[in-house]
Amino acid sequence: MEPLDFYFDFSSPYGYFAAMRMEALADKYARRVAWHPVLLGAIFKTTGGVPLPMVPLKGDYSYRDFERSARFHGIPYRRPGNFPIATQLPARAMTWIARDFGDYKAVPFAKAVYASYFVDGIDISRPEGIAAACEKVGLRHEAVLEGANSQEIKDMLKAEVDAAVERGVFGSPFVIADGEPFWGFDRFDQLEAFLKNGKI
Amino acid sequence: MEPLDFYFDFSSPYGYFAAMRMEALADKYARRVAWHPVLLGAIFKTTGGVPLPMVPLKGDYSYRDFERSARFHGIPYRRPGNFPIATQLPARAMTWIARDFGDYKAVPFAKAVYASYFVDGIDISRPEGIAAACEKVGLRHEAVLEGANSQEIKDMLKAEVDAAVERGVFGSPFVIADGEPFWGFDRFDQLEAFLKNGKI
Repeated sequence: MEPLDFYFDFSSPYGYFAAMRMEALADKYARRVAWHPVLLGAIFKTTGGVPLPMVPLKGDYSYRDFERSARFHGIPYRRPGNFPIATQLPARAMTWIARDFGDYKAVPFAKAVYASYFVDGIDISRPEGIAAACEKVGLRHEAVLEGANSQEIKDMLKAEVDAAVERGVFGSPFVIADGEPFWGFDRFDQLEAFLKNGKI
Repeated sequence: MEPLDFYFDFSSPYGYFAAMRMEALADKYARRVAWHPVLLGAIFKTTGGVPLPMVPLKGDYSYRDFERSARFHGIPYRRPGNFPIATQLPARAMTWIARDFGDYKAVPFAKAVYASYFVDGIDISRPEGIAAACEKVGLRHEAVLEGANSQEIKDMLKAEVDAAVERGVFGSPFVIADGEPFWGFDRFDQLEAFLKNGKI
């Protein structure tokens, strides 16, 4: 069976919530997950999308919804001081770690990056911001930064983002399961029904 | 206790789903509902919002999500041929019916209008498109059209839409319960938790 393709941006609160639940959901139905960090900034150039906080009325509401959804689902969350942020650095770092060490380290790294940002309030767009996540998976911070900043990794991530848009990914989180697309953490109920019944 | 303020646009599929569930949810917690038809077209002038089908990638996805969400929640739904449409006429008609006959007729009228559009594929933006809904609540079609087109009703609806924007309503459905805003049919789970526990 193909893995569940899980797309997320490290600056997306709903992507963070999804990342905290993705593995448990996949395990329940004996499915693998392919984790794909993407860049909403690049995707929005195609879709004309705008970061939530910049939309009148909806922006104010979204801050409230982030906190309320976290409480509702029992996920730790603290509104970061700097939001949204550029996520090239953590996305490239994860891409490098995945290539050289596999998901065994890349997935815990991704979850640690999310926790650094959405729990500890660390600005993960800055080089020192991913130090705690590197330490968590036993990798030297300097080595990760060097790997993340190579041209090859930049190109790999760019190709990943282009491929995501090609598949119709326009937001975060976004899961494609056996060809069926699910946008938003609030579609995890439908995703689960699909995994359970093979259709929806 | 204040009623639950329920805002919806007659061209909104998620507003339709919410309208099919709103009363049962409110009854469960012994709450009243104040039904507020609004015009997303007018609201989007404030928020810069764009009708879903016009957004690249997201538009295609949204058609799929309408149908899938309807199946998931067990609500009859057929994609209308003409979508989205202007909803001044049904919104004004409901405003007139509510003023002159009360919710006793206005609420069944609203649900019948939604069913005409999202089940029977009738273009409810046209005068003949609301005939079936008028008949359903025992009102003469001609009388409703005349009432709906009066300047007083046009002004009443405009004032309702302005008041909605003033309260932060930016989409459909939108429920405000004791000051707490909930946007989207996919927040009915959080709305229910709030009604049950008095907080969330």
